[in-house]
Amino acid sequence: MNKPLKIVVIGAGSSYTPELIEGLLVRKDEMQISDLWLVDIEDGWEKAQIIAALAKRMVDRADVDMTIHLTQDRQLALKDADFICSQFRAGGLEGRIRDEKIALKYGMIGQETNGLGGFANACRTIPIALDICRDIEELCPDAWLLNFTNPSGMVTEAILKHTNVKTVGLCNVPVTMQKGAAAILGCKEQDLMIQIAGLNHLVWATQILHQGQDKLSEVLEAVLAGNDSMVPQNIPPFAWPENLVRSLGMIPCAYLRYYYQSQDMLDEEVKELQHQDQGCRAEVVKSIEKKLFDIYRDPHLDVKPKELEQRGGQYYSEAACELMSAIHNDKRSVMHVNTRNNGAISGLPDDCAVEVSAMITSAGPIPFNVAPLPTDTLRLIQLMKEFETLTVKAAVEGDMNAAIRGLILNPIVPTGHVLEQALAETIEANRAYMPQFSHLH
Amino acid sequence: MNKPLKIVVIGAGSSYTPELIEGLLVRKDEMQISDLWLVDIEDGWEKAQIIAALAKRMVDRADVDMTIHLTQDRQLALKDADFICSQFRAGGLEGRIRDEKIALKYGMIGQETNGLGGFANACRTIPIALDICRDIEELCPDAWLLNFTNPSGMVTEAILKHTNVKTVGLCNVPVTMQKGAAAILGCKEQDLMIQIAGLNHLVWATQILHQGQDKLSEVLEAVLAGNDSMVPQNIPPFAWPENLVRSLGMIPCAYLRYYYQSQDMLDEEVKELQHQDQGCRAEVVKSIEKKLFDIYRDPHLDVKPKELEQRGGQYYSEAACELMSAIHNDKRSVMHVNTRNNGAISGLPDDCAVEVSAMITSAGPIPFNVAPLPTDTLRLIQLMKEFETLTVKAAVEGDMNAAIRGLILNPIVPTGHVLEQALAETIEANRAYMPQFSHLH
Amino acid sequence: MNKPLKIVVIGAGSSYTPELIEGLLVRKDEMQISDLWLVDIEDGWEKAQIIAALAKRMVDRADVDMTIHLTQDRQLALKDADFICSQFRAGGLEGRIRDEKIALKYGMIGQETNGLGGFANACRTIPIALDICRDIEELCPDAWLLNFTNPSGMVTEAILKHTNVKTVGLCNVPVTMQKGAAAILGCKEQDLMIQIAGLNHLVWATQILHQGQDKLSEVLEAVLAGNDSMVPQNIPPFAWPENLVRSLGMIPCAYLRYYYQSQDMLDEEVKELQHQDQGCRAEVVKSIEKKLFDIYRDPHLDVKPKELEQRGGQYYSEAACELMSAIHNDKRSVMHVNTRNNGAISGLPDDCAVEVSAMITSAGPIPFNVAPLPTDTLRLIQLMKEFETLTVKAAVEGDMNAAIRGLILNPIVPTGHVLEQALAETIEANRAYMPQFSHLH
Amino acid sequence: MNKPLKIVVIGAGSSYTPELIEGLLVRKDEMQISDLWLVDIEDGWEKAQIIAALAKRMVDRADVDMTIHLTQDRQLALKDADFICSQFRAGGLEGRIRDEKIALKYGMIGQETNGLGGFANACRTIPIALDICRDIEELCPDAWLLNFTNPSGMVTEAILKHTNVKTVGLCNVPVTMQKGAAAILGCKEQDLMIQIAGLNHLVWATQILHQGQDKLSEVLEAVLAGNDSMVPQNIPPFAWPENLVRSLGMIPCAYLRYYYQSQDMLDEEVKELQHQDQGCRAEVVKSIEKKLFDIYRDPHLDVKPKELEQRGGQYYSEAACELMSAIHNDKRSVMHVNTRNNGAISGLPDDCAVEVSAMITSAGPIPFNVAPLPTDTLRLIQLMKEFETLTVKAAVEGDMNAAIRGLILNPIVPTGHVLEQALAETIEANRAYMPQFSHLH
Repeated sequence: MNKPLKIVVIGAGSSYTPELIEGLLVRKDEMQISDLWLVDIEDGWEKAQIIAALAKRMVDRADVDMTIHLTQDRQLALKDADFICSQFRAGGLEGRIRDEKIALKYGMIGQETNGLGGFANACRTIPIALDICRDIEELCPDAWLLNFTNPSGMVTEAILKHTNVKTVGLCNVPVTMQKGAAAILGCKEQDLMIQIAGLNHLVWATQILHQGQDKLSEVLEAVLAGNDSMVPQNIPPFAWPENLVRSLGMIPCAYLRYYYQSQDMLDEEVKELQHQDQGCRAEVVKSIEKKLFDIYRDPHLDVKPKELEQRGGQYYSEAACELMSAIHNDKRSVMHVNTRNNGAISGLPDDCAVEVSAMITSAGPIPFNVAPLPTDTLRLIQLMKEFETLTVKAAVEGDMNAAIRGLILNPIVPTGHVLEQALAETIEANRAYMPQFSHLH
Repeated sequence: MNKPLKIVVIGAGSSYTPELIEGLLVRKDEMQISDLWLVDIEDGWEKAQIIAALAKRMVDRADVDMTIHLTQDRQLALKDADFICSQFRAGGLEGRIRDEKIALKYGMIGQETNGLGGFANACRTIPIALDICRDIEELCPDAWLLNFTNPSGMVTEAILKHTNVKTVGLCNVPVTMQKGAAAILGCKEQDLMIQIAGLNHLVWATQILHQGQDKLSEVLEAVLAGNDSMVPQNIPPFAWPENLVRSLGMIPCAYLRYYYQSQDMLDEEVKELQHQDQGCRAEVVKSIEKKLFDIYRDPHLDVKPKELEQRGGQYYSEAACELMSAIHNDKRSVMHVNTRNNGAISGLPDDCAVEVSAMITSAGPIPFNVAPLPTDTLRLIQLMKEFETLTVKAAVEGDMNAAIRGLILNPIVPTGHVLEQALAETIEANRAYMPQFSHLH
Repeated sequence: MNKPLKIVVIGAGSSYTPELIEGLLVRKDEMQISDLWLVDIEDGWEKAQIIAALAKRMVDRADVDMTIHLTQDRQLALKDADFICSQFRAGGLEGRIRDEKIALKYGMIGQETNGLGGFANACRTIPIALDICRDIEELCPDAWLLNFTNPSGMVTEAILKHTNVKTVGLCNVPVTMQKGAAAILGCKEQDLMIQIAGLNHLVWATQILHQGQDKLSEVLEAVLAGNDSMVPQNIPPFAWPENLVRSLGMIPCAYLRYYYQSQDMLDEEVKELQHQDQGCRAEVVKSIEKKLFDIYRDPHLDVKPKELEQRGGQYYSEAACELMSAIHNDKRSVMHVNTRNNGAISGLPDDCAVEVSAMITSAGPIPFNVAPLPTDTLRLIQLMKEFETLTVKAAVEGDMNAAIRGLILNPIVPTGHVLEQALAETIEANRAYMPQFSHLH
Repeated sequence: MNKPLKIVVIGAGSSYTPELIEGLLVRKDEMQISDLWLVDIEDGWEKAQIIAALAKRMVDRADVDMTIHLTQDRQLALKDADFICSQFRAGGLEGRIRDEKIALKYGMIGQETNGLGGFANACRTIPIALDICRDIEELCPDAWLLNFTNPSGMVTEAILKHTNVKTVGLCNVPVTMQKGAAAILGCKEQDLMIQIAGLNHLVWATQILHQGQDKLSEVLEAVLAGNDSMVPQNIPPFAWPENLVRSLGMIPCAYLRYYYQSQDMLDEEVKELQHQDQGCRAEVVKSIEKKLFDIYRDPHLDVKPKELEQRGGQYYSEAACELMSAIHNDKRSVMHVNTRNNGAISGLPDDCAVEVSAMITSAGPIPFNVAPLPTDTLRLIQLMKEFETLTVKAAVEGDMNAAIRGLILNPIVPTGHVLEQALAETIEANRAYMPQFSHLH
């Protein structure tokens, strides 16, 4: 395992990239990386240049023998790569802003991975993800693609179904739940064995083992008492419907709020949008990003700045680096990943993507069995998976029937004329990014 | 088969009863009925007396040897009965008005069998239905209970799970679909073989066979072109989302509007409620009922009056009479009934109630197999069945966790604080009818 | 429904054909048949001519306006046909004799539809059945193919999977069970509603309804007490393992002896074979057939002779005629047929053939749901279906891995060297009839 | 983790016990054991005394501070135990000899875990195992029970279903497969990730990962070429049916010979039995055991003797020690264990025992998901599991219907009179050990 590695980052102009660089530098003894290729497109070029410069300063400071390359030539970068991190955002933050605003205009929750926004994001992203995979199949067929491009579950499913690329989908939500549970219990993360199951942004912790005991109800009570350690930093404090969550016997991820507290979420978004200085969530993110890049520009900065931690995707990059190392070194660590179901969650198709706990080997993740879920939780997962699968179909084939049949199932999407109009506006507003629907124009 | 029959009607003060009487009189050669017992409670006594008097005039006119009994003593009536028709409304129309108004107050669809209203109705009705069944188990264990008390699917499931009573749940929706399809095709109803599958008020016609051909798409196109023959008379004209329904390859029942056009339905209900003269749907029904009883009172009336046909539940009673005759005479006719699933719809528990097509024998319904449904439709059915099963559990055991977990799944129920408040108000407003929740007060 | 029908019989030289003719003549008022085409190949020509001559005498005697055609030109016969009865025997009785003797030589049960013999028969028959279906697809695509060529279940599955022909598989076993149950109960057949489930030659009666009661245990006790009315006439008297069958709560068809009494069946076959005058079962059948054709030759014979009834396949042809009439007249009678599973038996693939009770309409059979079977019975059915499905694959694709993997599952087939040798000898001995395995020679 | 452990061995007079002692001594740094309690019954007392004396000598030599206790008082031994190793043989080798001879007398394979012998062994063993568990529930409810009493799968299932004891079933077969695969590949065992799935003595290796590659077909070809490293030492060399096994794409465990080569196995057993000097397998084992105990008696022996390795159960005890250490130290090593299915193998009940690969934590095994098996293999597993489940029911409840219905499914058991007689003789010959069937006498 001593061949030095070539790693490629697609969408390198992301504000998260410094965390990724830091993660790689921290693991310099586990993974010898000769070349790190940063790839971005013209639209993100300015940000990519800032990132590349910062990356070089970080590498220099760490005194590591790793060459940073910056390019718009994706194929050049992919040639013989060992790992590819995909973290691009199709249509940029402008796309996300549009998604949120269109949804809210029609009285729907506007969110980049859920509801109509998740649908729009998938339709913009999946065609590009599949294009990248065609290149991988040709230029580095043995490479592992670590996808943390959102909506991560649907993008992973599209890649698993339509390409031969070895891929794992990642998300910071389960990592945060794991770290949070350790914090609540006051124990080391590696002493916990936490099991996660569901779909991306629709997962539950089903057991939290520590020294032979399942500490789940202890952790759950802390969560209900207001401890928000298990919630990503970018999500403001909130309270769960207490009896509901207690009766589940599982700990829901923060995104379950969209399903367990749908009206509250909508009301909150509407209020935020009306708040003059702030705008919708994507606009808030845009302004945070702007500040981050101002910091990144500083020629004296040669470490990941503290400010990045508030950004929300915290631990994303740590998860990516840990996954690379686990595969590279056959570490057999337990991680929580998006991968092919294959029966891990009974009641879902074998070929769909699920987010489950797995042991990571040099041959990729080997998922643990998910013990039978409570029927009501399974029904929600099955419903949402069907929405996702129909959305993937719509995104790949431009099939409007699949689109509408999927959206109609989604419990946070109202149906009828309002949906038809919102969908039409979504497709029209994204003409440039949704070639699969060009037959509709 | 020549022993004369004893038939009992529970909730006899219903405005539908004259249709039931007519149906029995029309079938006098198929079923010899010596005694028809009309049962109601003190609250409905005035209406029951009007009905009983009309029933006697109808029997006299028909010159049939059938004695009409009117009583509040349910056990006296049930002793050695052959068939029981259950059509009571727990809490009366006042209860339904409350359900609709509470739901609408909280921005939810208010409807007697769907959403929060369906939940409330189930919680009021199921305890009484089970009480009646205890009497049946003791007094007439071989009798068939024909349930058309709403919510018919959940009531039937409660009876199937918690009693030994032989029961079949009935609804006029599939009958109307069958008659409507025949009208559209211009053929005799008995020449059609229509297959229906799903849950009560959540069914689809999956095939419409005529002379060796499946005419479903022909009928579907007529429906999409505006032919509303398949829709019960009390539902005003509406248009389906055309592409969606066409792509299903099945014909949804009218109640699917609550799922395929949820926002439109809510908007419509809000508008109706604001319309000064009219009030909510239940208030409209109340005023129709009042007019009907004014007509029934007429001592010269000795037939079912025409006006009853606009009432909405048209064909309910016809279905009941036909079912009684089919069982009594081992007719082997095809009807669409609520019965134990037992694998008829794959993907649902064996012990739940489903609404499917069946051949009716003297041993009750033998359901046809339901060919695999499109996955998205199955997912919706599975979700709604889970809502129903949790609601039945809540209704029987007073389990608030089951209640909230069920409601949270229901796609036409918003979640969060609004749901908690609406649920609390529902239970408070129904204190007198929901003893199972008395521990909450 | 008044267009006169064209009916084609493939394998018309069968000794059963006179029963079929009789069945058609008896139903002359239900089905007006203008042309009956008898088709056979050169090898069976002498027998076919005898049958054709007898058929003409029978038609003349019945004074029915139906033209009998005899031909070796299958395509001429099929052109614009309405119904096709397939009853050919690939390789003739000589093939069956070979099957039985090879199996017995290797210490295995030798039988035309079970074990190694069933496999051999399927491999000889399915390629021809598919050839016939290619002709049907071209020459009479709307025709119904009634298959009673053995092994009926596997042949039906091959046709369902590999052609677009509308087909129903038939067998006399369920008919005999139904008639036998009526005889035991002393009631009319049409007053019984008997439900049958499983695979061809592997079915159980699961309920026997009469006047609202399930009489199954009454019938079962009669069977265990020695009443053999439910067993085809060609099967000699035998006793079931009493406790086993009683505990099943279902009545097994006679062929279940091969699974419930495997050693006894083998011992019996070995004894029969050693009996000098008699030979194996197929040789007995051959000698019966010879006598029958001697009778058929008699130019004075113009009815179905009594002797035919001992032949074993009794009611086969009656079932075929009744099925034709039920389809032609949309009779909605209940019959027991081999058809696509589609979920009727939970736990089997949708696309496999099962033998179940169905209502027969002009669009073909609509199967009843099969209530969940006892798990042990389901396991046997699942195992045998997998054997069948692998055998169909072997027969269609010449896939030797499928062949061996299927045979290894079959509980009446010993495995190891003995199986490898027996299989090799089977394929070698059938070179002329198994072109799909020509790559092995 | 520093409380010294109390370990109990039930059936300590087993000839394997020295291997267990050695395993514990080797792991003295991982597990500090203060007390090792050896328990046996009067019938095995002489052997138990020999073992205890040898154990003391081994402990002395290793200079470890561990007290050896020998007792017939099981409850005294169990009080506050941490781990219990169950390795008793109900009825002793005499029982096994009887099983093998009765089966062979009736022309059946005679084997201690398969077919009729497995059934008999289960019926003798399960009542005792459950008795032990009642003691554990009372005296050391937190202890882990490591079961390697045969038939390990059925005994584990009985314990899982009928007690609250934390248990894991173990077998040396998967361990041997893992070690053999490493030997074939010439790599370290810990560098392999081998996945095993099925039931006890009915497992397949489904993948053999090494450095990111699945080496299964390489290993499979070595196996087919005659490399017997994956086969336990006590099983003589044999050749698999080559095409069959190659087409599986999985490596079967040696016991699959009973299903893939049933006639060969029977012939071999019959031949062995007829061989004058040798007797049946159990008699061979008895004579090996006699020699081993002669060696153990030697007061100078203070290590595990070499001769033990030919005994057959090699690695059993190593697996037990490794499992104890993995639980005690939360090692998260991958082992292959019998545990509750819970969906790990789709198509089997949640509550049955399966043999699968799992990560071992301080809370016990967390099974990996088993990717969907080929349908034919699944069918065999489902069938055999049903045999096992019915056998467990028969063993626990004395239910003869369950017994016969289970045995009839078993593909290596012939059915009919021969089975009824063999079963009756089995129960009669085991009167003293099968109290559950006392109602039959």
